Amino acid sequence: MKKISILGSSGSIGKSTLDVVRKHPDRFKISGLAANQRIDDLIEQAHEFRPTIVSVGNRELARKVKAQVDDSVMVCYGEKGLIDVACCEEADLVMNSVTGATGIIPTIKALHAGKDVAIANKETLVAAGCVVTKLAKEKGCKLIPVDSEHSAIYQCLNGESRDQLSKLIITASGGAFRDLTKQEMTGLRASDALKHPNWSMGEKITIDCATLMNKGFEVIEAHWLFEVPYEQIEVLIHRQSVIHSMVEFVDGSIIAQMGMPDMRVPIQYALEYPNRLKSDYPKLDLSLISQLNFEKPDMARFPCLSYAFEAGKQGGTMPAVLNAANEVVNFSFRRNEACFSDFEKILDEVLSSHHNIQNPQLEDILHADAWAREKAELLIKRQS
Amino acid sequence: MKKISILGSSGSIGKSTLDVVRKHPDRFKISGLAANQRIDDLIEQAHEFRPTIVSVGNRELARKVKAQVDDSVMVCYGEKGLIDVACCEEADLVMNSVTGATGIIPTIKALHAGKDVAIANKETLVAAGCVVTKLAKEKGCKLIPVDSEHSAIYQCLNGESRDQLSKLIITASGGAFRDLTKQEMTGLRASDALKHPNWSMGEKITIDCATLMNKGFEVIEAHWLFEVPYEQIEVLIHRQSVIHSMVEFVDGSIIAQMGMPDMRVPIQYALEYPNRLKSDYPKLDLSLISQLNFEKPDMARFPCLSYAFEAGKQGGTMPAVLNAANEVVNFSFRRNEACFSDFEKILDEVLSSHHNIQNPQLEDILHADAWAREKAELLIKRQS
Repeated sequence: MKKISILGSSGSIGKSTLDVVRKHPDRFKISGLAANQRIDDLIEQAHEFRPTIVSVGNRELARKVKAQVDDSVMVCYGEKGLIDVACCEEADLVMNSVTGATGIIPTIKALHAGKDVAIANKETLVAAGCVVTKLAKEKGCKLIPVDSEHSAIYQCLNGESRDQLSKLIITASGGAFRDLTKQEMTGLRASDALKHPNWSMGEKITIDCATLMNKGFEVIEAHWLFEVPYEQIEVLIHRQSVIHSMVEFVDGSIIAQMGMPDMRVPIQYALEYPNRLKSDYPKLDLSLISQLNFEKPDMARFPCLSYAFEAGKQGGTMPAVLNAANEVVNFSFRRNEACFSDFEKILDEVLSSHHNIQNPQLEDILHADAWAREKAELLIKRQS
Repeated sequence: MKKISILGSSGSIGKSTLDVVRKHPDRFKISGLAANQRIDDLIEQAHEFRPTIVSVGNRELARKVKAQVDDSVMVCYGEKGLIDVACCEEADLVMNSVTGATGIIPTIKALHAGKDVAIANKETLVAAGCVVTKLAKEKGCKLIPVDSEHSAIYQCLNGESRDQLSKLIITASGGAFRDLTKQEMTGLRASDALKHPNWSMGEKITIDCATLMNKGFEVIEAHWLFEVPYEQIEVLIHRQSVIHSMVEFVDGSIIAQMGMPDMRVPIQYALEYPNRLKSDYPKLDLSLISQLNFEKPDMARFPCLSYAFEAGKQGGTMPAVLNAANEVVNFSFRRNEACFSDFEKILDEVLSSHHNIQNPQLEDILHADAWAREKAELLIKRQS
């Protein structure tokens, strides 16, 4: 019986994780749950899964939760609460599915506490990949990918020698704007971007899909997770999202992982790695889909993807800056305070004015993150 | 340095195997070579690769070869010569790429001599799968697939638990007649079938591709190689031959192996398994191919495929009978003594008049093979 703490249990990945746990009560038990604002979801989850500890966004919400859950449940809140759930003694594995840079510290604390971490929080690796992967190695803990792309690569590498890997090929649906010209994209608003063609996800990431920034982050994550230089990572537009990613080996052979776009499959794989559990999720029938398409990504239309490669190659605090500035523009875009072309303009400006620090410590990363947020906010304010 | 004997060195797979050896002189050495009629090829190969032993089809050819190769090379002939090459002391691995049921006995002898066998000879597994796989297990020898499809499955199973496999999906280009109606196929001749859309291979197998019998044989081979029941083996028409085959696991995840249609890749994999050697073979670029298509096979147009499933499920000597009768019809078809619809007619008649023997010994298989050849020849003669 594996005991799991979920950070971000009221989000899309959190709920899918609970669905996997629900389907395999003989394999998994929930030790802790952390949500931010959606306490109704959390309370319901606490009733069903009976965790030892839960956490919410602030003291006021914690008070409300306390009144509605079993007396035996420890109720915490805020950043410390998130860490308490991540480090709760009985947890074997922490599913980190919070959104944003908030996810970094709990990952580090969980690793320090000797937990394996299933990583759905992109920022942990994008901003702090150097620190986190080093720590995981030192502590002998696993960092298991949850993203369908990285899970695919993880699966493709099963039983293979890492030194015989020649290229990672990360597939991308192309996002909501894949068929628009650069001109057509200029004035687009959040409502246009919140229509992902294949996956149902949270708002922040759906916008990041439309800019291909999400794919760029995945490139940086892959770099850290699989220790592959950026020159050996490729992005391939594959609109059906059926091939989740591929690995090319030195003999020219390519191993690919496929399936229906259903996050429960990679989540379940992360929870039970390296075993596979029998499941009743919808199965892929290629004869029904009949056709798979592939094309190179257009960096001119989607500059965020090239920014990510660029920031990744520069290394140091640059990826943290890219991530933080993007978080600000993404947030403003969703509030209709920024338009689509602002991603290109503002990120370019923030990145080019950052003084990069190589081999950063966690403090350098957090400092760069804060600096980039402030800078991006200023730029957005200035132009409105 | 791995020492390799090649049975069928003047054929398509044999020559590709030598090309792999040529590219990796630090990894492989040729211990023995066996050809049938094409002695000019064999002599040239003997000069280049300096084997200890060679064999050809008959005594007369052996005399001619003896006169033209180094004195130190032992020159044999006939069935015994093939076995001597298979069992030659220094060989670590035997590449069995002869065509037809001739390949069965040398495989068995090689296993008895403790050699690993790379299997490109379909009949070894189609006709004698039960005997050969049992023997390989007893002797602790590997049977390594060479067919691109089985090599793909072998690769997809790397690092996976066999008991978590739910389905093998064997891809098929569909052969030369994939776009014809049943009516259009009736009167076709060998010259029409000898135009394989993707692979360049020998004549016998190219015809078997046009009838989908080759795919049927691959289903039977997969059954024996991977110990998977026929109910868990599927054939999928995939005209680009880019995905070489796939494995579906119990969690719904599918692992696929892809590459350019180049037999040197699976051959090299078989020779060096489980390692992959760096190679300069043409690499697959999915953005150039741009589209992959899939459809279910049409058993009504290609009855040979359903005969293979049927014979496989019946087991015993039935697959040997299917293979032998097909060899006769295929041979007659290539000599324009049978037309395309004879495959259906004659195979049906031979199969339905065979008294199946379950759990056959090698003698039962060879006897069934001889019976089926005689029966098929009789039927062809009778109708002409």
